[in-house]
Amino acid sequence: MRFFDRFKQGELRLTRIEAFSDGVFAIVVTLLVLELKVPVLKDHSSAGELIHQLVELAPKFLSWLISFIIVCKFWLNHHHLLGLARHADYAMVWLNSIFLMGQSFIPFPTALMGEYPTNRLAVCLFGCVFALNTLLFIALNRYIVRNLLKPELLGLQDPHALRKAMVGPLSYLVGAAAAWVSVHAAFVIYLLTPLFYITPPSWHGPAGGAATAGDGIRD
Amino acid sequence: MRFFDRFKQGELRLTRIEAFSDGVFAIVVTLLVLELKVPVLKDHSSAGELIHQLVELAPKFLSWLISFIIVCKFWLNHHHLLGLARHADYAMVWLNSIFLMGQSFIPFPTALMGEYPTNRLAVCLFGCVFALNTLLFIALNRYIVRNLLKPELLGLQDPHALRKAMVGPLSYLVGAAAAWVSVHAAFVIYLLTPLFYITPPSWHGPAGGAATAGDGIRD
Amino acid sequence: MRFFDRFKQGELRLTRIEAFSDGVFAIVVTLLVLELKVPVLKDHSSAGELIHQLVELAPKFLSWLISFIIVCKFWLNHHHLLGLARHADYAMVWLNSIFLMGQSFIPFPTALMGEYPTNRLAVCLFGCVFALNTLLFIALNRYIVRNLLKPELLGLQDPHALRKAMVGPLSYLVGAAAAWVSVHAAFVIYLLTPLFYITPPSWHGPAGGAATAGDGIRD
Amino acid sequence: MRFFDRFKQGELRLTRIEAFSDGVFAIVVTLLVLELKVPVLKDHSSAGELIHQLVELAPKFLSWLISFIIVCKFWLNHHHLLGLARHADYAMVWLNSIFLMGQSFIPFPTALMGEYPTNRLAVCLFGCVFALNTLLFIALNRYIVRNLLKPELLGLQDPHALRKAMVGPLSYLVGAAAAWVSVHAAFVIYLLTPLFYITPPSWHGPAGGAATAGDGIRD
Repeated sequence: MRFFDRFKQGELRLTRIEAFSDGVFAIVVTLLVLELKVPVLKDHSSAGELIHQLVELAPKFLSWLISFIIVCKFWLNHHHLLGLARHADYAMVWLNSIFLMGQSFIPFPTALMGEYPTNRLAVCLFGCVFALNTLLFIALNRYIVRNLLKPELLGLQDPHALRKAMVGPLSYLVGAAAAWVSVHAAFVIYLLTPLFYITPPSWHGPAGGAATAGDGIRD
Repeated sequence: MRFFDRFKQGELRLTRIEAFSDGVFAIVVTLLVLELKVPVLKDHSSAGELIHQLVELAPKFLSWLISFIIVCKFWLNHHHLLGLARHADYAMVWLNSIFLMGQSFIPFPTALMGEYPTNRLAVCLFGCVFALNTLLFIALNRYIVRNLLKPELLGLQDPHALRKAMVGPLSYLVGAAAAWVSVHAAFVIYLLTPLFYITPPSWHGPAGGAATAGDGIRD
Repeated sequence: MRFFDRFKQGELRLTRIEAFSDGVFAIVVTLLVLELKVPVLKDHSSAGELIHQLVELAPKFLSWLISFIIVCKFWLNHHHLLGLARHADYAMVWLNSIFLMGQSFIPFPTALMGEYPTNRLAVCLFGCVFALNTLLFIALNRYIVRNLLKPELLGLQDPHALRKAMVGPLSYLVGAAAAWVSVHAAFVIYLLTPLFYITPPSWHGPAGGAATAGDGIRD
Repeated sequence: MRFFDRFKQGELRLTRIEAFSDGVFAIVVTLLVLELKVPVLKDHSSAGELIHQLVELAPKFLSWLISFIIVCKFWLNHHHLLGLARHADYAMVWLNSIFLMGQSFIPFPTALMGEYPTNRLAVCLFGCVFALNTLLFIALNRYIVRNLLKPELLGLQDPHALRKAMVGPLSYLVGAAAAWVSVHAAFVIYLLTPLFYITPPSWHGPAGGAATAGDGIRD
């Protein structure tokens, strides 16, 4: 048996993979708020000074908002994807772990962009990290669709799925490039990107009929 | 098919939504304690200096206590609500994600009020955030009751439910307004608000019979 | 219907209560390590300076160890206890929430004792918090055994259970009192207390036969 | 009944043990990123200064990467192992708790090595902690295989399993020793160790036939 084939062995329980992944997702989105540090006030009772300090925190609030929405979108896609798999194997678990490594890294570029919103490199890195995360998700997606798809879903795949999926990473990379021209443009692109693909994925059968309602991800 | 109708598609697994939500709730309540920082003592062995410093921390303990109780109440209501749904769709997942975003934000206003309990704006913001969170929950509640209710629960809704639900946000807003007169009054209102709606929700059938015991949220 | 009776209504799903509780337990034990801060070295490459600094951290390691073991013990007892319940009601959920509030507070006294191990008040507070936590668990335990016990377990209760359960809080209070004489004695008592009740609980039937193997907590 | 036999009593639910363990694993891997602190820049907008600071963070990124991969590997092995058990008893729960204590400790040596990558003691301690963690896992593994194995898996054990399992701790100890000669060599060994045993475990029947596909860990 060849070395790489060994990774296709084993039938692992999806429930624990989901539990571990859900834990990572939940902690990532909640840790993001820790970057919103309470400002230091000279006059503790001054509402004016506090409002001034909170306005200064605006880039941090915005970074937090963008990352939160994107991680929720990843969670939703992950939820959808694992619903397509009939079981897990070792290759999938490692692709999933590397994907989760990318997710758990998100608080760092988020904090960096929130702290230095005028630093073109910090804003650029934010987009690069999210582009990379989307590519890691696409790799996981392709592996599951090709190797672990539930039998009843075979042939129901959207032939344009990969092309559509590449919209995400491309858009983040456009934002990352835009940061060197205008950090404001980059912020706008990062904020708009999840909206492009926030709608539910559709699964079309070979005859073109929509198969979303019966796509087998029910509980 | 119209754009917004696409969000009503898909049948998502409630178990993973609950797992993700439970993770966020659990992390939020546990992160709250991180704001209770160990005080810096000049004389490490002095019990007197420590007791003095712990008394200084009293507003932080109180903020922690109030937020903990309120988040637990949100968790309980969320638990109850998801027990009413027959399945999930994309619109519900996004309403749930935005609601969880509000929950994950709670450590920030809690820390702010704990750090600056005499700052009217900090105390006011605390109430505003909780009013907003309650509104986000009401939005999720309405969507589920109108679109995803289990068939056996149809017609069992409390006609006064919405009016009752508005007590929460109104009470928090009264607290937020009271902060500009007296921060002590605001603290008292924040502490009392969850007590108003801490009792179990009642579901009455059309004939007025109590239907709580059979409201379908059993495991 | 009287006010307090309303809390005995509702049949809540034990699975979500367990998921929320497990999340809080898992986060508490893992957050404890955050108090073990990397020491500041003048000479970054000096093994000698690092070993000196790590020895200085010994009280923090010890506090971490004690709290970790005790929280695991609470988790185990909680696991056992919820296995006895046939379902949950609102009163149980609130007793559980208050118990979890106590658990989530544990990192604070742990950090305090680790930071100021020679401060009698800090060491005393540690014991008081754990005594209180044990009392909160006993309250939850009593409520479940009296109101929510699975029918097949009725009459199988250990008549000495409460007296045994009081060993924990008493021992912690003895430790808390000992802190005013010798902090070392208090550390020893805190370390030994979980060993007293680390063994599995036994359930004896009315005829005195051991009923542990069939105590209904199987999956 | 002898004292130690009492620990072999009780049939505990594997689902909650898995939920608690998954929570700890998920939090550990996600907390690791908190050590990647946003650098302090003099000129907030300087990309050059930021890139210089990020290069300085390289040892922290590397420590984070190594620990993340290793903890994922532990999670995967733990997942596999608990799939072999027919139920849990108290001894297993305590072995599991001590193993999780080791896991939750990982952020500390990771941060230490990331902060002081030229300090031989810091790099050495990292290897020692992982060697100890692997030994704790082996202890848990042995206990389950000897006492709690599902009946259908009896006799399917790999006779070389223990010898293979010792490769991990030995390799980490070699790395720990190598740190005193060259910290770079130690980093390389730590990075390569998980690759040695990243492939799926094989279970061979007495007749030598591969039994992986039917090793009973399916959901």
